[in-house]
Amino acid sequence: MKILIILAHPSPKSFNHAIADAAASAARENGHTATLIDLYRQGFDSHLPAGEIPTDGEVAPEIEAMCRDLRAAGGIIIVHPNWWGQPPAILKGFVDRVFRPEAAYRFLEGDNGEGVPEGLLTAGAALVFNTSNTPKERERTVFGDPLELIWKKCIFELCGVDTFYRRMFTVVVTSSEEERREWLGEVRDAVCSYFPAE
Amino acid sequence: MKILIILAHPSPKSFNHAIADAAASAARENGHTATLIDLYRQGFDSHLPAGEIPTDGEVAPEIEAMCRDLRAAGGIIIVHPNWWGQPPAILKGFVDRVFRPEAAYRFLEGDNGEGVPEGLLTAGAALVFNTSNTPKERERTVFGDPLELIWKKCIFELCGVDTFYRRMFTVVVTSSEEERREWLGEVRDAVCSYFPAE
Repeated sequence: MKILIILAHPSPKSFNHAIADAAASAARENGHTATLIDLYRQGFDSHLPAGEIPTDGEVAPEIEAMCRDLRAAGGIIIVHPNWWGQPPAILKGFVDRVFRPEAAYRFLEGDNGEGVPEGLLTAGAALVFNTSNTPKERERTVFGDPLELIWKKCIFELCGVDTFYRRMFTVVVTSSEEERREWLGEVRDAVCSYFPAE
Repeated sequence: MKILIILAHPSPKSFNHAIADAAASAARENGHTATLIDLYRQGFDSHLPAGEIPTDGEVAPEIEAMCRDLRAAGGIIIVHPNWWGQPPAILKGFVDRVFRPEAAYRFLEGDNGEGVPEGLLTAGAALVFNTSNTPKERERTVFGDPLELIWKKCIFELCGVDTFYRRMFTVVVTSSEEERREWLGEVRDAVCSYFPAE
């Protein structure tokens, strides 16, 4: 199985990088192909230009290649910090540009864009790992945890991926090494559970 | 009063631009100073670098200037399309970089970043205008309207701006010219109501 891992954190020594590496190792140990897209390292251009908005718009070849990889992935894993209840801009831009019509979803015939799109992704499951410095209870009661809505409802269910798992590790800034080791164990367990050896 | 208008849409002929222009005119007619930041036109660099994350991190002078303008604004108006229940990446990056600690909020003494921040913005109100192609009822029931949580709870209340108004204009793609004219009238009315002549 091809597993696509998309990572957004500016510091190569971040715990997010450790999570992405743990997910990739676990996937490979299970016999899968894991491709890690480190958006900051690649210098991904995150600003959707006007010309790419229409379904038949002109799309850069490197974006088209990413669209094909996304659609073909048997599993998708997203790793990013919780910044303002949202992903970092560079990852938001990956969604804006790569989750395209006719790649990730399509409008049904006779629909000008106002209707209910049909999901086109073929992944069996999507996993989202977040890091945060907001205590879990405060995230839920004060902020309403918009990341859950964003990834589960607005993105993956719309694109046809209904099997969804998300885990927010918090509070990272005050966590012990022991705690972070356990968290990486949880990442490996989740990957093995959703993408077992074939 | 100084009113800061932040706009994110790649097409200069977009309805978002018409909204931002209507908001700026209404503010000026009421005797305020309106500054419009058109993020796409300015080519804003939206990727928060690792070095800017710490409170005492090294911040580019143009970002520092934007932080000062944000903190000093008597009113803030945000204009953007609903893309995946979130702002476009370029605007997300404006929040990541310009809503900085010690500019938009601060951690209380002895707090390593895990606690409850104190808002520092001085704006009397924040207005958010969105455009969308998702019918209102579907946005609420299927997607949970994360933009409301994001702007109201995660950003403006955290930064100390409790007076908040948001209006999502939808469905834009099938709207008539008459309808869009009425919507621009609503924009002007909201600006006049929240930021009346002094």
